[in-house]
Amino acid sequence: MKGFMDDDFGLQTQTACRLYHDHAAKLPIIDYHCHLNPEHIANDRQFDNLGQLWLEGDHYKWRAMRANGIPERYCTGKDASDWEKFEKWAETVPYTMRNPLYHWTHLELKTAFGIRKILKPETAREIYEECTAKLRTREFSARGLLKKYRVEVVCTTDDPVDSLEHHLALQNEGFPVKVLPTWRPDRAVAIDAGTGFRAYLDRLSEVSGVTIRRFPDLLQALRVRHDFFASAGCRLSDHGLETFYAETYTDNEIEKIFQKAYDGHPLSNEAVRKYKSALLTEGAKMDWEKGWTQQFHYGVIRNTNSRMFAQAGADTGFDSIGDCASAKTLAAFLDRLDAEGKLAKTIIYNLNPADNALIATMIGNFQDGSVAGKIQFGSGWWFLDQQFGIESQLNALSMMGLLSRFVGMLTDSRSFLSYPRHEYFRRILCNLLGNDVERGLLPESELPFLGTLTEGVAYYNAKKYFGFK
Amino acid sequence: MKGFMDDDFGLQTQTACRLYHDHAAKLPIIDYHCHLNPEHIANDRQFDNLGQLWLEGDHYKWRAMRANGIPERYCTGKDASDWEKFEKWAETVPYTMRNPLYHWTHLELKTAFGIRKILKPETAREIYEECTAKLRTREFSARGLLKKYRVEVVCTTDDPVDSLEHHLALQNEGFPVKVLPTWRPDRAVAIDAGTGFRAYLDRLSEVSGVTIRRFPDLLQALRVRHDFFASAGCRLSDHGLETFYAETYTDNEIEKIFQKAYDGHPLSNEAVRKYKSALLTEGAKMDWEKGWTQQFHYGVIRNTNSRMFAQAGADTGFDSIGDCASAKTLAAFLDRLDAEGKLAKTIIYNLNPADNALIATMIGNFQDGSVAGKIQFGSGWWFLDQQFGIESQLNALSMMGLLSRFVGMLTDSRSFLSYPRHEYFRRILCNLLGNDVERGLLPESELPFLGTLTEGVAYYNAKKYFGFK
Amino acid sequence: MKGFMDDDFGLQTQTACRLYHDHAAKLPIIDYHCHLNPEHIANDRQFDNLGQLWLEGDHYKWRAMRANGIPERYCTGKDASDWEKFEKWAETVPYTMRNPLYHWTHLELKTAFGIRKILKPETAREIYEECTAKLRTREFSARGLLKKYRVEVVCTTDDPVDSLEHHLALQNEGFPVKVLPTWRPDRAVAIDAGTGFRAYLDRLSEVSGVTIRRFPDLLQALRVRHDFFASAGCRLSDHGLETFYAETYTDNEIEKIFQKAYDGHPLSNEAVRKYKSALLTEGAKMDWEKGWTQQFHYGVIRNTNSRMFAQAGADTGFDSIGDCASAKTLAAFLDRLDAEGKLAKTIIYNLNPADNALIATMIGNFQDGSVAGKIQFGSGWWFLDQQFGIESQLNALSMMGLLSRFVGMLTDSRSFLSYPRHEYFRRILCNLLGNDVERGLLPESELPFLGTLTEGVAYYNAKKYFGFK
Repeated sequence: MKGFMDDDFGLQTQTACRLYHDHAAKLPIIDYHCHLNPEHIANDRQFDNLGQLWLEGDHYKWRAMRANGIPERYCTGKDASDWEKFEKWAETVPYTMRNPLYHWTHLELKTAFGIRKILKPETAREIYEECTAKLRTREFSARGLLKKYRVEVVCTTDDPVDSLEHHLALQNEGFPVKVLPTWRPDRAVAIDAGTGFRAYLDRLSEVSGVTIRRFPDLLQALRVRHDFFASAGCRLSDHGLETFYAETYTDNEIEKIFQKAYDGHPLSNEAVRKYKSALLTEGAKMDWEKGWTQQFHYGVIRNTNSRMFAQAGADTGFDSIGDCASAKTLAAFLDRLDAEGKLAKTIIYNLNPADNALIATMIGNFQDGSVAGKIQFGSGWWFLDQQFGIESQLNALSMMGLLSRFVGMLTDSRSFLSYPRHEYFRRILCNLLGNDVERGLLPESELPFLGTLTEGVAYYNAKKYFGFK
Repeated sequence: MKGFMDDDFGLQTQTACRLYHDHAAKLPIIDYHCHLNPEHIANDRQFDNLGQLWLEGDHYKWRAMRANGIPERYCTGKDASDWEKFEKWAETVPYTMRNPLYHWTHLELKTAFGIRKILKPETAREIYEECTAKLRTREFSARGLLKKYRVEVVCTTDDPVDSLEHHLALQNEGFPVKVLPTWRPDRAVAIDAGTGFRAYLDRLSEVSGVTIRRFPDLLQALRVRHDFFASAGCRLSDHGLETFYAETYTDNEIEKIFQKAYDGHPLSNEAVRKYKSALLTEGAKMDWEKGWTQQFHYGVIRNTNSRMFAQAGADTGFDSIGDCASAKTLAAFLDRLDAEGKLAKTIIYNLNPADNALIATMIGNFQDGSVAGKIQFGSGWWFLDQQFGIESQLNALSMMGLLSRFVGMLTDSRSFLSYPRHEYFRRILCNLLGNDVERGLLPESELPFLGTLTEGVAYYNAKKYFGFK
Repeated sequence: MKGFMDDDFGLQTQTACRLYHDHAAKLPIIDYHCHLNPEHIANDRQFDNLGQLWLEGDHYKWRAMRANGIPERYCTGKDASDWEKFEKWAETVPYTMRNPLYHWTHLELKTAFGIRKILKPETAREIYEECTAKLRTREFSARGLLKKYRVEVVCTTDDPVDSLEHHLALQNEGFPVKVLPTWRPDRAVAIDAGTGFRAYLDRLSEVSGVTIRRFPDLLQALRVRHDFFASAGCRLSDHGLETFYAETYTDNEIEKIFQKAYDGHPLSNEAVRKYKSALLTEGAKMDWEKGWTQQFHYGVIRNTNSRMFAQAGADTGFDSIGDCASAKTLAAFLDRLDAEGKLAKTIIYNLNPADNALIATMIGNFQDGSVAGKIQFGSGWWFLDQQFGIESQLNALSMMGLLSRFVGMLTDSRSFLSYPRHEYFRRILCNLLGNDVERGLLPESELPFLGTLTEGVAYYNAKKYFGFK
């Protein structure tokens, strides 16, 4: 019987323990994709209490609470206090057993606060108070937490119209953690967003100084901002997509579609797909020109609950996994760029684990020998960021590609307490490798190489791949 | 080396054994979805022999026999004797090793008849005779078997036109097992069933006393029967669907489609989808009004073998797993009901395990905090009712939702001997939990809570959720 | 800690070891589907060196090398020497840890050459030289390798226009290994291949002696060649498909479509599907008439990288897994044949493992009791020919069908060194069975039957099923 979440948590073999403790554990963190608010870092936000830190914006927890029969008042509601929300969360925690929330919760308590108690109604008050007291110290500010978890790079997720003021302030100040923007032009892609699209164009005009009346103007405005992001150290783009787009189109067609949308007229589905194909392709070329890595997060259906969308807005826990066929469009999209010699380094994250093999093999079609692991199968994302999801991704990548060249884990989180997810991932990685060695599936004699491989996936591959300045 | 099917069958750890023996094993059975024939209970059917009990209607066994090279004569054939069929089944049993039939067969022999022998040609005759002798005693009648397996509730599957005479007789008689009907209006949905649809409407008119000439008449007739089912203790509806339907439609459109079908004219695919969207939506609202739970079994392609359908009819073992994209329509269907505030408690069962993650996350979109586990991911169904299928469903639910709020197992069976499937499920559940505890993934200190969780999934969650009277 | 790739490689239990060593290991190999070049056998090719043998045509290795950052020059390039290519491969090998290439590489070194060293840059030269020296001996010729691996039957993959001269020469010579052709009419199906289709028809006319001007001529020409293949011992057909086709069509429609293509006009997608439905159906009937087994390999998207297709051609490592919905068309295709009483023995291989359950249940719809395991779920294919892929296929087949009736493994390979893949498969099979026995999931008392089952899946089922003369 192993103790819960002890030093060898998740590690079933001696070899796994060696790989983890001697190689993975000691490395800093490169968090190349997350949703942290850069303002919180720039202003070194201090959290009022554990309820605020944990429940202010965490749709994972809200979903678990709703499934546990907790009213919305304690999730996105405005009138319940932080303590009340925390109390409901503590009531829910035992019911999350086997869900990653149960592990994350206790890993965060342990690694940030040194608390080894189990969170449940009986311990809720004492844990809340102990953590809240600590949170009010400097050690637990936004920056304090980054330091505590030895974070070396943070890549936030930012709209092209964003001023990046906080990133720039941090850089000017010489803050030792690299806090870099990521280019996420989803709103420029969303030509089917009704009046929001035109409003976005106007905003982009304003910020870029480029009057946008035609499609080439839009590209020019984006390019101005793309350059600006690059000057702020940006090395990645990111896209949230339901599926991929790879229609054929002419400049003339795109111009007509653009004008129609600009003038507020509705578009056919085919027109939408053509426009998205064009914009994503042009954006992809910009990424290639700058040596950036482009990321695609696909396979989600968003805002499925219209009642709650009206009440609480986007990203509040009403998105789930889609099942749109994507293999041929994804291949065609990548092929078009490769054929032009303009395929940037690329990471593809699927949300439906049924697509793991599809993606694990797709990336092999566009490896061109120029960079090891040029096209990457992204780490288990969102609902897949848990033991089975991570193992499945690692296994599919191993069996159909090169695990050794994987750039590894990211938090994708809005919370400064999510850094133990890197530890969690590293333990799972070491456990898989350790099991293989002890079962005779990998040679014990090659343990030094396996140590190097582990360190690569945990840290060095990402460091080399992204080329942060 | 563990003994085959001993007391700790399927339980790999001490903790699993404790959870199973101390918590799960002792609880009665709520079988909230099955296909038992209520007449057999009302009349307390006595089975002639083991061949009849096992092979009269079991398409699982027929499929295995056909795959084993056994002619149809011994499956659905009318001229082979029960013994001959049994003999062919016994010949097939060894060839089912690793299939759930091998476990079910020996669990049934053990738990019903106390037989620990392995069924194979050499033992066929003695097992047949021993069981047949027992089957002719009172202890082994339909009611005797329900009692032996401590079944508390049985929910059968019934058409709206059914008289429910046997359910009512059992209730009048005060039979201690609750035998309740389930509302399954598939034939009212099947507007694409050719002349069968009109014939069904006529039958429904007759039974309900509502003349059906227009679509609102159909709804009214269904409502009359829905009320009648409710008066007989019905608490669930059920739907067998290839996929979901969530077209937009107007009353006028539906009326026209209905008239066209009523008059025997063929319909476009779009018209069929619109009608099904409308009827399912209206039915769902009735379920909500009564506080019922609606069940959707989707993802099957039925009657794929036209030769055998002509020869042996439906449900004879020629259905299999489909791959129709369903995420967006399912979300839209549930959203429409939720937006109206009329989304009943819902259980969704997918037949294609590739959709496990899709469903495990979909349910989270419509948890509204009103009832713990309001929207449920149904237990491994049909082809998934086996070790890996059950484990995959439990793992997906655990990782992406709350295992603790799961209403658990059902037999979905036509046989009075299928009750050990509940035991099988409980053992798998306890085994997963036990492994997690002993690997340090769940805290040993919380074993009392895990005992409660186990009892909840095995029995109490269902008891509370369905609200049987 | 088990030694890497020792005698009990992959076998976790004593029972697994017994099943493997006492039953599986000793049996010869029936390789009923591969891509060996029959000319190499007829001429008893002698390989120049290990670089040539391993890297001349192995797109698995090329893909791994590209992903490892190795330039194309060392993959399909013409100007790098065999040694240079081998050196780059050896550099890549450690980076393939957990990929099947790592196991295959070391299994091949061990079983063919008796080398137990780990291949890596430090050992590359010595291994290259030792193997190359051996390859120049008679023991390591094409025929020598077939003998070394105790291969009993080899079924190559051949176009209807192929002369089969090498197969015939080997048969005339009395070569003890049966080297039989397989009928692969993909080019006759590919009506959408542009000018290639017409050119193919002309070639087929020439070879068959049937002037092809109308669709029935094409069928007649194919029949002439089908007869010829049968006379050369052919017992299987094979088809590589993106998905299945089961359109309704009339002779008249097909004739018009055929004429359009014959005259070089483009076809609608629907016309292409109708033609393919017709040709596959007619071909399937020919297979049935001769008692052949038809194989369908489906779910691949091919030649996704147009730049590399132009540079290196087909089958160079730019194919991957598709996600086209196929359940209903596959069912309809098989049903049409079954309804006519002309459904041949059939093996279906899916490339997307998300379809495992779909196929494992689909085959059950068309088992007709005439032959045990008449419809087969094909062994893990291509990207799925690895530990997890093989296990998943075996588990899905076990849970939803009859493992015991499985015809087992094939290499699907272009290399004379791929025969250890049969050993690899057998070890995985025995390991699964052994684990089940030791966990009490299968009865130890039935070990003799399990031995027979193991031998069946490893060898005897295929021997009986295919009926090689």
